[in-house]
Amino acid sequence: MTIFDDELRDLKEKILRMGLLVEAAIRDSIKSLVDRDSELAREVIRRDHQINAVDVEIDEECIRLIALRQPKAGDLRFITTAMKITTDLERMGDLAEDVCERAIELNEEPPLKPYIDIPRMAEIAQGMLIDVLDAFVRKETSIAYDIIKRDDAVDNLTVQIFNELMFFMIQDPRAVSRAVKITYIAKYLERIADHATNIAEMVIYNVEGRIIRHMAPPSE
Amino acid sequence: MTIFDDELRDLKEKILRMGLLVEAAIRDSIKSLVDRDSELAREVIRRDHQINAVDVEIDEECIRLIALRQPKAGDLRFITTAMKITTDLERMGDLAEDVCERAIELNEEPPLKPYIDIPRMAEIAQGMLIDVLDAFVRKETSIAYDIIKRDDAVDNLTVQIFNELMFFMIQDPRAVSRAVKITYIAKYLERIADHATNIAEMVIYNVEGRIIRHMAPPSE
Repeated sequence: MTIFDDELRDLKEKILRMGLLVEAAIRDSIKSLVDRDSELAREVIRRDHQINAVDVEIDEECIRLIALRQPKAGDLRFITTAMKITTDLERMGDLAEDVCERAIELNEEPPLKPYIDIPRMAEIAQGMLIDVLDAFVRKETSIAYDIIKRDDAVDNLTVQIFNELMFFMIQDPRAVSRAVKITYIAKYLERIADHATNIAEMVIYNVEGRIIRHMAPPSE
Repeated sequence: MTIFDDELRDLKEKILRMGLLVEAAIRDSIKSLVDRDSELAREVIRRDHQINAVDVEIDEECIRLIALRQPKAGDLRFITTAMKITTDLERMGDLAEDVCERAIELNEEPPLKPYIDIPRMAEIAQGMLIDVLDAFVRKETSIAYDIIKRDDAVDNLTVQIFNELMFFMIQDPRAVSRAVKITYIAKYLERIADHATNIAEMVIYNVEGRIIRHMAPPSE
């Protein structure tokens, strides 16, 4: 084991720790919605600066490693990908904040309907986040491919939620404002899952040199 | 002038070229909506693979430069930031595609209302994109600060569009589906502006070492 090996291991741990912070933010944002707990939502918003701090810390560490250790091909690619991944994680954290803001607004109005599909979506997205970071640090492309598949389930749930809420809006004009906010939350979760999918694509590109979504012109 | 200086200049040119492709995609996506020209929308969607190809090309060039030239502090930071910026540009391209998809759907239904604020939003977002890349290559933080300010105008327009469409939806249930699609387009443009703002923040961090949005806990 060289010092550089140790440093790479530390870097991986930091990324996983950042992932856990983001996962907790997503989980609590949905809990604040389902339990109508605006205090929890405000706490998640307050906590976001921790995620941002770890993002900056990892970025600086990556720059330092590149400058000091002059890593070769595989390691260099791993480190530059780490810098991109933390940007995705940081934005997932921002989206959890957005969920909290809508939750606070929704909690001030009477409930429109019980939340069923939203927590399901969040659960899938959280699983994608945890698993994709695992795929990244272990360079496991099979998990990465699986995550890309799971993104379809999230997209389908978004459409389902959207259609259901559209029905509410058409039935009752007083539901419009709340229904639109709930579709926004579904969209935030969809984007969180998209970020996980972006990371999965980077993992595959990193390991196999294969571009999944990129470059190929659309099939139609 | 060393070879490395030439290479850096080429890199900057490639990034600007990628920016122009993305700007054209945004412009045409809105044109396809306003002119109800679904053929143009489909063309923008087909063209997106060009943006993705340039993204990969720039990424590979950055990795090559780091490995081969072992750039020091400032140049290294410039190159790693370039890699992050192209990710933002690529996603702006994806959002232009999303606008086109909604435009195609909307063009199949009778017009709900003339589009006034949406083209205004797009124009601001396009200006932000072009200017932020200029700020990046010239390391001009004053432009970057200005872009962050302009993002507020975009956010205000989003709220305005949202409120206006909410009114349509409450008045007429048949307007709901179209109105929701238009709010989505406003959201896509807002996110395009957000990406430009993210880039502006990176430029400031790069040049001044100051973190604009990050780390500071929210003021409330």
